[in-house]
Amino acid sequence: MNKGKWNAITDVEGVSVGHVTLDRPGDGDDYFCTGVTAILPHSGNWFKEKPAAASFVLNGFGKTAGLVQVEELGVLESPIMLTNTFSVGAVLEGTLQYMLDENPAIGDSTSSLNIVVGECNDSYLNSMRKMAVRPEDAVRAIHEASGEELEQGAVGAGKGMICYGAKGGIGSSSRVVEAGSRTFTVGTLVLTNFGRGHECRFPGWVAPEEPTPETPVAEEEKRPDGSVIIVVATDAPLGARQLKRIARRAAIGLGRTGTHIHNGSGDIIIAFSNGLLTSHGGEEMTVTREIIKDDHPIMNDLFEAAIASTEEAVLQSLLHAETTTGRKGRVVRKAEFR
Amino acid sequence: MNKGKWNAITDVEGVSVGHVTLDRPGDGDDYFCTGVTAILPHSGNWFKEKPAAASFVLNGFGKTAGLVQVEELGVLESPIMLTNTFSVGAVLEGTLQYMLDENPAIGDSTSSLNIVVGECNDSYLNSMRKMAVRPEDAVRAIHEASGEELEQGAVGAGKGMICYGAKGGIGSSSRVVEAGSRTFTVGTLVLTNFGRGHECRFPGWVAPEEPTPETPVAEEEKRPDGSVIIVVATDAPLGARQLKRIARRAAIGLGRTGTHIHNGSGDIIIAFSNGLLTSHGGEEMTVTREIIKDDHPIMNDLFEAAIASTEEAVLQSLLHAETTTGRKGRVVRKAEFR
Amino acid sequence: MNKGKWNAITDVEGVSVGHVTLDRPGDGDDYFCTGVTAILPHSGNWFKEKPAAASFVLNGFGKTAGLVQVEELGVLESPIMLTNTFSVGAVLEGTLQYMLDENPAIGDSTSSLNIVVGECNDSYLNSMRKMAVRPEDAVRAIHEASGEELEQGAVGAGKGMICYGAKGGIGSSSRVVEAGSRTFTVGTLVLTNFGRGHECRFPGWVAPEEPTPETPVAEEEKRPDGSVIIVVATDAPLGARQLKRIARRAAIGLGRTGTHIHNGSGDIIIAFSNGLLTSHGGEEMTVTREIIKDDHPIMNDLFEAAIASTEEAVLQSLLHAETTTGRKGRVVRKAEFR
Amino acid sequence: MNKGKWNAITDVEGVSVGHVTLDRPGDGDDYFCTGVTAILPHSGNWFKEKPAAASFVLNGFGKTAGLVQVEELGVLESPIMLTNTFSVGAVLEGTLQYMLDENPAIGDSTSSLNIVVGECNDSYLNSMRKMAVRPEDAVRAIHEASGEELEQGAVGAGKGMICYGAKGGIGSSSRVVEAGSRTFTVGTLVLTNFGRGHECRFPGWVAPEEPTPETPVAEEEKRPDGSVIIVVATDAPLGARQLKRIARRAAIGLGRTGTHIHNGSGDIIIAFSNGLLTSHGGEEMTVTREIIKDDHPIMNDLFEAAIASTEEAVLQSLLHAETTTGRKGRVVRKAEFR
Repeated sequence: MNKGKWNAITDVEGVSVGHVTLDRPGDGDDYFCTGVTAILPHSGNWFKEKPAAASFVLNGFGKTAGLVQVEELGVLESPIMLTNTFSVGAVLEGTLQYMLDENPAIGDSTSSLNIVVGECNDSYLNSMRKMAVRPEDAVRAIHEASGEELEQGAVGAGKGMICYGAKGGIGSSSRVVEAGSRTFTVGTLVLTNFGRGHECRFPGWVAPEEPTPETPVAEEEKRPDGSVIIVVATDAPLGARQLKRIARRAAIGLGRTGTHIHNGSGDIIIAFSNGLLTSHGGEEMTVTREIIKDDHPIMNDLFEAAIASTEEAVLQSLLHAETTTGRKGRVVRKAEFR
Repeated sequence: MNKGKWNAITDVEGVSVGHVTLDRPGDGDDYFCTGVTAILPHSGNWFKEKPAAASFVLNGFGKTAGLVQVEELGVLESPIMLTNTFSVGAVLEGTLQYMLDENPAIGDSTSSLNIVVGECNDSYLNSMRKMAVRPEDAVRAIHEASGEELEQGAVGAGKGMICYGAKGGIGSSSRVVEAGSRTFTVGTLVLTNFGRGHECRFPGWVAPEEPTPETPVAEEEKRPDGSVIIVVATDAPLGARQLKRIARRAAIGLGRTGTHIHNGSGDIIIAFSNGLLTSHGGEEMTVTREIIKDDHPIMNDLFEAAIASTEEAVLQSLLHAETTTGRKGRVVRKAEFR
Repeated sequence: MNKGKWNAITDVEGVSVGHVTLDRPGDGDDYFCTGVTAILPHSGNWFKEKPAAASFVLNGFGKTAGLVQVEELGVLESPIMLTNTFSVGAVLEGTLQYMLDENPAIGDSTSSLNIVVGECNDSYLNSMRKMAVRPEDAVRAIHEASGEELEQGAVGAGKGMICYGAKGGIGSSSRVVEAGSRTFTVGTLVLTNFGRGHECRFPGWVAPEEPTPETPVAEEEKRPDGSVIIVVATDAPLGARQLKRIARRAAIGLGRTGTHIHNGSGDIIIAFSNGLLTSHGGEEMTVTREIIKDDHPIMNDLFEAAIASTEEAVLQSLLHAETTTGRKGRVVRKAEFR
Repeated sequence: MNKGKWNAITDVEGVSVGHVTLDRPGDGDDYFCTGVTAILPHSGNWFKEKPAAASFVLNGFGKTAGLVQVEELGVLESPIMLTNTFSVGAVLEGTLQYMLDENPAIGDSTSSLNIVVGECNDSYLNSMRKMAVRPEDAVRAIHEASGEELEQGAVGAGKGMICYGAKGGIGSSSRVVEAGSRTFTVGTLVLTNFGRGHECRFPGWVAPEEPTPETPVAEEEKRPDGSVIIVVATDAPLGARQLKRIARRAAIGLGRTGTHIHNGSGDIIIAFSNGLLTSHGGEEMTVTREIIKDDHPIMNDLFEAAIASTEEAVLQSLLHAETTTGRKGRVVRKAEFR
């Protein structure tokens, strides 16, 4: 199965990604080592042309906002935003402000708006309690979005994240699925902040030294269980029920990297298709649209693409993330492979 | 089945409720007719002693935050906050700030925090696009909380809400369930913002005049489909699976009031028990605790209590909410009964 | 909102219903007072042209078979069969035999088959432990199916059922929804076996005498909590996600009749559309099809139709079911209305 | 992490497993190459002492019966039975008969009974359309159950199954989790009937020759996508919500073996604990019981045990299953490892 041009979620036509990274001291001992990443599902107006979407919660120790409406209506109507756990509120507000500026009718007459924000806990490196991310950082991340080669690793929401005891963050990968004369792309972006070093199954992986029962760390040096947000994009015309199937396969791809899906890890997958858009409002009672048949062999290919691109996206996050110094002089080192 | 002393959610020992109401002009044509309501699940530290909890989404056209973790872990660890749709971010942030101030360890070492915020769309009366509610309003609502008689109607998050075409808002009711020598209370609080006037089934109800296909309103005068948030509290020792059963019965109580559960209405129920608390962390591997048996007859009594208190809480919201004037001079009148 | 010609599920074009009723003594004290009801979703081959479908479990104290695949694939591929709790196995087998006879390829090469069987517990009147229903009864019920006026009450699977302490069984109702030049029908069939007499809210209802705490019955005379299966059919082109929304509204219609949704009651709703068919297999990778928009006003009309037809179907089951004598000479009387 | 004595589900104290295997010609071309496997959750009366239970459906293209009630009540009350797809009805009926014989009160007064039957499609080797498994085979499988060393491979329900293109069937494995002075066991049994040869990731795996796009097989020689049923048992005191978490980890263990979780594969996990029993009926309103805390480190160990024992159970099914000849002289060969 081939990869797309960038081997990234941006290989899905119309998808773009923007990062805002915070890397600066705060007051006193504080250091801000965090950020925001925005995934724009297509190049048009997302509220007016809503991509089909679904989610799967592999482990719900997480604070992702916006999934209730995605489940009910089967669509996105905003970018998917990623940030640290305590910045969900600020990013919600900033993204909302952006959307209101673009859509003067929302919230003035009959409409409301659903925004999806995923998060991981970067409090080992970042002074997360200080909520350094502000609403305007979310707006900036949207404005920064590009559909070309993707910056990965310790960038945007990934700035302060830790994966398998090494530096994690943003990773991405893609696969191209061919069926007859048609070609579809599946692209995955992950925000990795999960796992213990000894769990990782990538070939050549050198597990970072971690505290053991014999060499415990002080309570205040303990690291949280972490989390991972997985965003799967495609241009294949799949409806919400089918995208939930895709999302479950992405969970399988995650599992292959070795994690035990820890109790404290919010492992959440969101899948969307910009190949199946629903217009907001309008006079028409029905729409007519093309959709892939579940029992056509391409479905299994799309499943494989979701698994493979998720597994590789986790690897990419480890390959790209550079050694990072955060608060209290804490250092998390780049992943090492033999 | 008897009612509690206040016929309100505050009849559940330890539950308290606080409101902050905004009722003031903004810039230009803007008027802020909105607020925040905080429901505190017990009188202790909610993070350290987590009440059992579950949710049921009757119609997910809504933006409630925090339900993913409630589903996974079956507990609350914050107050349940209610506000308007576009203030979820600000209320999340304010509530988080309150919790961080109370719990210095959260977000510093291994912990994170999940906050539940429910919302309805009050944009007919409130200049919702301007996001007048600020984080400190959420903090104030928590500080205002009282476990005594409850202010209901056009107050707190209910200030700008519309129910069955009349003024809606906050309503509450309770039921007392007796079994042998023991007594449990089920208390419900609703934020009502749903339904068309002709749907309402309360005896004596006089349907407000509403636009009809023959007398349409201008696009900008249209009202959103609305929503309703239902919070059911109890001191009966019920686990998360059982509370989900309670939440589904609350949906039945809502349905009895007449609504067709409109497409655009986010109808969401959260149920919790402060009679079954889970301690955060600690050395112990197991806890030993008492729980009600599903097949004991009291279970059906608790179900009846959830249905009846929800139905009456909706009525209470209509009985208490006074005629309210909001933005653009719009008036929503007090419900009329023959 | 108008009703269809028969005020029954058979008003949905192509839907037909067949009953087989068992009403005869068995060995010793046994008496068989039970049956099978088959709901055929359209007049073609259901396996080759699968209707869109979804379910909602209001209370899962039930043994309905086949819902796992309905949830995953969003389609039916068999009739919906109803019977007593202990005959699910026999009815599964009989229905399967019918389907295999009609479709020689199933189970021979690549296909399998999913069959939906709903049930209620009729053991008060029926010697349910003796499993009198045999596979051939299921086949007969399918052969008996008619799309005309529907026999209701103590017939088919409804023969031994009890509703609100009176004789229950099969009930049905329909609503016609108009939008512009198009007309859709929503038809509901219920198998009613739930509720206590004092709960019922129908106007004029006279609650049957039932055991009270003061006048208890012997253990062996106790009646089970019961259950209800609700089948909602429509020809409106709705997909599985939307049909789940319809199913939740049917639950609201049920709740309006007064039940507290008892612990021991398996209250399960299945909704399908024969206006959105999916072909089995074939060469095509995609299908193109028309679907109703969630945000068109007709959606709320369809919701109302599901609620209203469910509420009335329960009433119809009570109005049609005649006084019935079952095992041990037990009598359940026809419902009485003032 | 250590394995139990038998490295099998029977290492969980009280769990026993019985097989009935059919391996004989039928009429004409028919050959019966199928069976039944019964997993008994403890050595007492399962209806009177119900083990905590939950399920997770990774891919719902399956016909497993009984999951609706497991989801609602969080308990098992019967053995878990496994068989071929078209024998679910017969096995339901036989298991019911066994339970009725053991429990004279069931179905006579207030009780009903929920039976769990999982299935995979063995129609390549077995004349599945002929439904050779009869109710008494289910009863026999229950009577055959032993808590000692487990027969694995092409036996019981596994007789006709195919995994990764080689002979599959029954596999099992276990892990022992220690915490302080206490020891818990997690045991998994799988019925493997899924995957394509090239997908398998076990070290040394030699993919069987399979049809390719270049060397297609005749339509009638095509194999179904298959399925897998995974049963995870433990004696750790976990409630239903926690067992659902365990079940999701078992899905991760499955995914590690390589499968893409095909469209047509019913991949279903059932997890139970006989360390948390609920008594049927009785006078008591509440029970008091010990339960593991989600945030204790042992939870992650239990997760790891579920993943590891599932992964190894799949391998065991391949290592044990001998080359098998079924209908039409078809042969499926034993898995080959370098």
